[in-house]
Amino acid sequence: MEKTLASRTVFDGKLLCLEVIDVEVEPGVESVREVVRHPGAVVLLPQLPDGRFVLVRQFRKAIEEEILEAVAGTLDPGEDPLNCAGRELAEETGYVAAELHNLGTMFPAPGYTDECLHVFFARLTGESVERCPDEDERIENVLLAESEIEDLIADGEVRDAKTLGAWMLLKGRRPELVVRGS
Amino acid sequence: MEKTLASRTVFDGKLLCLEVIDVEVEPGVESVREVVRHPGAVVLLPQLPDGRFVLVRQFRKAIEEEILEAVAGTLDPGEDPLNCAGRELAEETGYVAAELHNLGTMFPAPGYTDECLHVFFARLTGESVERCPDEDERIENVLLAESEIEDLIADGEVRDAKTLGAWMLLKGRRPELVVRGS
Repeated sequence: MEKTLASRTVFDGKLLCLEVIDVEVEPGVESVREVVRHPGAVVLLPQLPDGRFVLVRQFRKAIEEEILEAVAGTLDPGEDPLNCAGRELAEETGYVAAELHNLGTMFPAPGYTDECLHVFFARLTGESVERCPDEDERIENVLLAESEIEDLIADGEVRDAKTLGAWMLLKGRRPELVVRGS
Repeated sequence: MEKTLASRTVFDGKLLCLEVIDVEVEPGVESVREVVRHPGAVVLLPQLPDGRFVLVRQFRKAIEEEILEAVAGTLDPGEDPLNCAGRELAEETGYVAAELHNLGTMFPAPGYTDECLHVFFARLTGESVERCPDEDERIENVLLAESEIEDLIADGEVRDAKTLGAWMLLKGRRPELVVRGS
C-alpha cells in the first residue's frame, strides 16, 4: 500500500489522462508516481470454423511501425467488456462471434497505467458483415493457423505483449476451447 | 505510415513524457495520437540451479494492488539492455546471473506508448548478494517451480501482461534453455 498524499491531473486528452501522485511508501519515505489513466480495453483471439485465427496488422504511431496484434479495442465509458468484445470484433474484422469465452484479465503496464485488458476467445460463425473501423483506423485482417502463429512466436515476430499474453492465457488456461483445424 | 503534421510535449516527468501528435492518416483524413514516451525496460525470467524461477511481488500504485510479476527495470539513458538486465537482477532480487539469454523484444502497449521491453532468460549461479532496490521500491522475491507458475497461469493468477508475454517467449522460443528442476 502506498498512501496518496496529493494528486493532480496534468493532462486530460482524447484517450489518456495523466495523473501525478505524491505517495507515502512508508512513514518517512515519500515518492512520486506518474499514472496514465485509461478506460480499459478488450483483447480477442477469434477462431474461424476451419481452425484459423484472425489477427490484425496495423500501423502504430507510438512505435512508427506496422505490427501484428490480437484484435483489440477500447471500452466506451461504462461499457460491459463482453459487449465491447462483440462490437470491436465486428467493427474491426467484420467477423461475428458464435461464442465468446472469457480468458481473464491482465494489466499491460501496471508500473504506470491502470489499463486493464479483458481477454476473450471467440468462436466465429464464419459469416462476415461489413467492417466499420473508426475513421482514423486502418486495419488489415491476417488469418493464421495455430501452427503459423506458433512459428511466428518462435521466430520473434510477434512483438506485441498483449498478443503474446493472450496467447499464453489461451494455451495455458483453456486448451479444450481451441478447435484444431485440418 | 501516418505523417506527423505537428507535435507538442504536454508533460515531461520523472519517468514518462507525454506527446500529442497531429497526424495525417491518409490524404484528407487527420487525427490526433497521444503518445507516452518511455525509456524502455528489461524483463527477466531468472532460474535457480534447482529449477525454480524468481518472480517478484510488489505494490503498484497505478492499479492500487500488489501483483506478481517477472523481474523488470527501466533502462538508464543510453544503457545497454544486457547491462541493465544484470544490474536490475542484482538490485531487485540479490541474485547473480551466470548466463543471460536474449528472448527478444516486445511492446507492452503499442497503441499509446513507445516503451520497448527487452526480455531475457537468466541462468542464476545460486549465490546472492545484498539487494539494493531504489529507495521507493518494496519488492519481495517469490520462488516458484515451473509447474507452479503454470498452475498460477491456469488459475488466472498471473495478471501482468509482460510476465505472461515473457513466459510465452520462454516456452515458445527456446524450450531448450529451461533446466527442469527435480
